[in-house]
Amino acid sequence: MASHPGNDGPPPLLGRRAPPCVLLLCHPIEFSLLDRPLPDNFRFLKPWESPLPLDDFLSSADARPAEAILTNGRAPVTADMLRRLPGVRLVFTSSAGVNHIDLAECRRRGIAVAGAGDAYSEDVADLAVGLLMDVLRKVSASDRHVRRGLWSSEGEVALSSKLGGKRVGIVGLGKIGLKVAKRLEAFGCAVSYNSRNTKPCVPYPFYSDVSELAANCDALVICCGLNEQTHHMITREVLLALGKEGMIVNVGRGSIVDEKEMVQLLVQAELEGAGLDVFENEPDIPEELLALDNVVLSPHSAVFTPESFSDICNLAVGNLEAFFSNKPLLSPVLYQ
Amino acid sequence: MASHPGNDGPPPLLGRRAPPCVLLLCHPIEFSLLDRPLPDNFRFLKPWESPLPLDDFLSSADARPAEAILTNGRAPVTADMLRRLPGVRLVFTSSAGVNHIDLAECRRRGIAVAGAGDAYSEDVADLAVGLLMDVLRKVSASDRHVRRGLWSSEGEVALSSKLGGKRVGIVGLGKIGLKVAKRLEAFGCAVSYNSRNTKPCVPYPFYSDVSELAANCDALVICCGLNEQTHHMITREVLLALGKEGMIVNVGRGSIVDEKEMVQLLVQAELEGAGLDVFENEPDIPEELLALDNVVLSPHSAVFTPESFSDICNLAVGNLEAFFSNKPLLSPVLYQ
Repeated sequence: MASHPGNDGPPPLLGRRAPPCVLLLCHPIEFSLLDRPLPDNFRFLKPWESPLPLDDFLSSADARPAEAILTNGRAPVTADMLRRLPGVRLVFTSSAGVNHIDLAECRRRGIAVAGAGDAYSEDVADLAVGLLMDVLRKVSASDRHVRRGLWSSEGEVALSSKLGGKRVGIVGLGKIGLKVAKRLEAFGCAVSYNSRNTKPCVPYPFYSDVSELAANCDALVICCGLNEQTHHMITREVLLALGKEGMIVNVGRGSIVDEKEMVQLLVQAELEGAGLDVFENEPDIPEELLALDNVVLSPHSAVFTPESFSDICNLAVGNLEAFFSNKPLLSPVLYQ
Repeated sequence: MASHPGNDGPPPLLGRRAPPCVLLLCHPIEFSLLDRPLPDNFRFLKPWESPLPLDDFLSSADARPAEAILTNGRAPVTADMLRRLPGVRLVFTSSAGVNHIDLAECRRRGIAVAGAGDAYSEDVADLAVGLLMDVLRKVSASDRHVRRGLWSSEGEVALSSKLGGKRVGIVGLGKIGLKVAKRLEAFGCAVSYNSRNTKPCVPYPFYSDVSELAANCDALVICCGLNEQTHHMITREVLLALGKEGMIVNVGRGSIVDEKEMVQLLVQAELEGAGLDVFENEPDIPEELLALDNVVLSPHSAVFTPESFSDICNLAVGNLEAFFSNKPLLSPVLYQ
């Protein structure tokens, strides 16, 4: 992890006189929410301070000097954009996913890409377990029950379900999925998984078919990234295989699940519950979910902690400094 | 664990002709919620089916044959009651706590007492971690934010706090506390504890003084039982030692915490948050808590799972059968 710059002055960046120019594709909330200044050994272009619309700004002379782009998961880096910014040699995204970046175009142009690496995986794994716990043990639903004054008027809440002994299928056993598994083991859950490939060094049963995984589980936890292979990977068929008492947690991306089908099954009680940090059309979520007591809704905030944000600020600065000092990136994204 | 009776017929109870008579001090919801019949090798007295008020019923001829009492944590077993039921030789409570039973009077009368033993400790430990997670990661608060439509209108929620690295002090390192510790270790928390005595075989730092524990922690998790020593053990001073960013989780009993002081500190933001499954005057809870976004309120439902209820039904039947067959109790409560 790069140290916080400023104490010993900025490191020399290849002896350049003018600081490298970095285009901020969106407001860097990780810095602003922590009241952390942007490092002064770079010049940052802030399109939102320009009177021009973003598209026009990117074609303007102001954007021309950009040698790097900083973005997050919500601001796409397209082939067209890269064509208009021929000086760009590095893209850093503060997101865990990279599905918003045209990696093929980056590869074609020799543009390096760096991402959040492992900075978020503990927080995301924590929230995955928290959402599963909440759906099973009805934590949010019980809180609503009490706040509405129903404990004294209507008595006890309905029975919830024990976490221990549950068969939990992890979809995507990467950095996040492995941490979810470790946590769930401490609760006595029986973990199995689906992933692109079987992992030779893990003790959990592997299912190459996600429907088969679902059929053998009480809950699925979606931890994989979004790409062409995983888009709508969780179909109606998979959800039906999970069964009426099945639960789904999604901390990956909304579009990994066929959301329309999932909502329908939840409404029809063909699925027991869901804990969702991600949705297909954020921040809009299907109206039907708002009326359901057996879902827990989280506003894509799995990484919204000062700890994760501090790590990502360090990574952003560290990758920029490394790149412009001809050193290896701290958290490179490998092209497929 | 006793097996479910019925398959091989009830076991012989000391060759008695008439089945032992068991007074149900309250409706046995563990059986009714699971649609599980009461075992037919006992005769159950159900005061709520009598036109008499409970007190009168207990003095009536109908109650006279009672040889055992089944109760839960909400129906006290008093010295006066035991005086009126001289045939009682066993009290079984389906609760983890036994503070509602006059143990001194039981000892004086040679009445055996059995309780929930370890049946609930996993569920209670799970909910303790769930409440801590919810308070730290703002799960319920985020769910409210989304359900009110504020995600699209007001944007992101406030930052929440990472679980990993938090210093968590467990008050009462018994069956439940140890399970909380094991779970929190998987999240990377630094566990320390206060207990009646230091536990020689655990790796966590021990604090004999609960204020000192609080001063060295980010969160306290109250897991101990309620007795004269622990009543209002968590004073204003302890909570102030925890500090403005401190959080408290209570899955023990409401009266272990000085609730009035805790509520005041939460309202004044002298305490960061609270996750509470228990309260001093259940089901009534302090009105001020309902308005706070940084508390999670749970209606004393830590053990409300079919799994725990099934275990407790087995224990109730198993202890009764053991007692009336002159065998050792499955989950005896040892008098102090």
